[in-house]
Amino acid sequence: MDDPTSCSLHHSDYNRVVMAHGGGGRLMQQLIETLIGPLFRNPHQELCHDSAIVPLGQERLAFTTDSFVVKPLFFNGGDIGKIAVLGTVNDLAMAGAQPLYLSVGLILEEGLPLQDLERILMSMARTAKAAGVHLVTGDTKVVEHGSGDGLYINTSGIGSLRAGIPPIHPKAIAVGDAVLISGDIGRHGLAILAAREHLSLESDIQSDLRDLSRMVRALLDAGIPIHCLRDLTRGGLASALIEIAETAGVQVVIEDTEIPINPEVEEALELLGFDPLFVANEGCFALFLAAKEAPRALEILKLHPEGVDARLIGSVTGLKPQGQVLARTAFGTERMLTRLSGEQLPRIC
Amino acid sequence: MDDPTSCSLHHSDYNRVVMAHGGGGRLMQQLIETLIGPLFRNPHQELCHDSAIVPLGQERLAFTTDSFVVKPLFFNGGDIGKIAVLGTVNDLAMAGAQPLYLSVGLILEEGLPLQDLERILMSMARTAKAAGVHLVTGDTKVVEHGSGDGLYINTSGIGSLRAGIPPIHPKAIAVGDAVLISGDIGRHGLAILAAREHLSLESDIQSDLRDLSRMVRALLDAGIPIHCLRDLTRGGLASALIEIAETAGVQVVIEDTEIPINPEVEEALELLGFDPLFVANEGCFALFLAAKEAPRALEILKLHPEGVDARLIGSVTGLKPQGQVLARTAFGTERMLTRLSGEQLPRIC
Repeated sequence: MDDPTSCSLHHSDYNRVVMAHGGGGRLMQQLIETLIGPLFRNPHQELCHDSAIVPLGQERLAFTTDSFVVKPLFFNGGDIGKIAVLGTVNDLAMAGAQPLYLSVGLILEEGLPLQDLERILMSMARTAKAAGVHLVTGDTKVVEHGSGDGLYINTSGIGSLRAGIPPIHPKAIAVGDAVLISGDIGRHGLAILAAREHLSLESDIQSDLRDLSRMVRALLDAGIPIHCLRDLTRGGLASALIEIAETAGVQVVIEDTEIPINPEVEEALELLGFDPLFVANEGCFALFLAAKEAPRALEILKLHPEGVDARLIGSVTGLKPQGQVLARTAFGTERMLTRLSGEQLPRIC
Repeated sequence: MDDPTSCSLHHSDYNRVVMAHGGGGRLMQQLIETLIGPLFRNPHQELCHDSAIVPLGQERLAFTTDSFVVKPLFFNGGDIGKIAVLGTVNDLAMAGAQPLYLSVGLILEEGLPLQDLERILMSMARTAKAAGVHLVTGDTKVVEHGSGDGLYINTSGIGSLRAGIPPIHPKAIAVGDAVLISGDIGRHGLAILAAREHLSLESDIQSDLRDLSRMVRALLDAGIPIHCLRDLTRGGLASALIEIAETAGVQVVIEDTEIPINPEVEEALELLGFDPLFVANEGCFALFLAAKEAPRALEILKLHPEGVDARLIGSVTGLKPQGQVLARTAFGTERMLTRLSGEQLPRIC
């Protein structure tokens, strides 16, 4: 839509699903806009973001879903069970909701060791307990060997919304807003890559997989007026900012030198040919809010172990109907960030 | 648990997932009791049935999840999209809830024709519209060719509960209750089998896949005090009744001659070696209620096209702590129905 020259979904090269349809880049955007999006055209569409916000009697709730197909099932810093719980907890948090209830849909592949299943389920129970959510309903299906990849997990989640908080959504972003990031980037993608390729990295890089809901709760408790939140999963920081800028119709400028990244992570990703800006994270978010609120928000984030690396990385510099994200380099030059047309690394969540 | 001599999950024959772990029979029961069940031990566990009933502020809601792995994706009378919407709508209805919102989690296999995906998504949209539910949030993942089977869909659903209606649950069943069935059995399993094996049956048997929520709404509107509802999916009528009898701690006796089944369906299933009592349905439910309410309930069911074949098939004849289901044959003899140890037909939903 923003690029009418790009190939249509019905282009002969793409009459079948390809891996990049799931990569968080341009092809995925097209798939969602042309085929999947129309499914969700309904009165609640307007507020769809990471979660839908819907009324129920006198209450409003946030509702979200995510399927997890991460490969391998176990990686440094987590496993598919932990990511399935926290991924959905974090999506609810990104809508400003308090995560309450999760459902668990298991698709087991024939041949999965029951010991692995047990280990993953225990990890889910432990993670849910720590995050203060209840796993309340579930479903189990089994598919033949060769029709799965050990285990896929869907979690859907329900969260409650505080009364009187305006919607947290790209549309709430204003020119002059500050852009904060809650933690250092690139670790989850690297941890998956290391586990998948049996790379022996010099250092022991763990996924950043973390519960983000506590930091959001603390911000709301302090009365910080949040404009927009987004966790930096598929497609990484760059894809999240591009998507937000497009929806908000604004120009965002970020400073390369301000983006927190562990030097070992940066070096390893560089060696492997990955741009850290596009590498998936599972434990940090971007936060848009009025510039004058930024110092207080940063202070609150830094009180949490999961927010010690929080930083101001940029600002909203103007209106731009098509959306635009510029990254300013250490040399003062600017480059425009564009969606990946393919994908860097599939199945990171 | 009810059969301490049966093999444990950790028996050497079963240290890996086998197809029967998803079949709705004894092995699935064990998997759920030993491994998966403990995941859901929480304050909301007590009312878990087809849906969880949980509080949200001043409201109570029903929450359910289901993953759909039906093979093939298209069959006579439906497709994976239609079953994914109605399966969850029906689960909510079985808790006495009014289905409101559905989430959609897609796991696409690389190589899936986009035309098939489009057809399935359109079927979902159409089915949701007809059932009066909104698809409000979604997620799309892509897995490599050979790591899926075209398409898996998870739908989770939220429904609202009327105030003042006692819980619809096996624990509400009383001795003397009538057992009704809302439609004829065996059609869904046969339709899947026919599509999978490219059987050319003499007649054109369609799946019974239907929206069951309208009948439930009509019963509640009429003030019928429903004790328990269960749709007769995996494992069919027999497995559903056994599970209910065990949870309720009662003996149920059903009359073989009263169970509605299309003669062509019965003949075809018999030829193929399937017991119709254990064959999956997607459009009928069992209903437990006080015997004196049965005639009025039957009348209401029969007003609906999806309930024209509704019948009184049996009753709750006494307490039985371990639960028991007896089927009385045309000759007046009785046989005890027991859970399948394996499974008849995998991946019917």
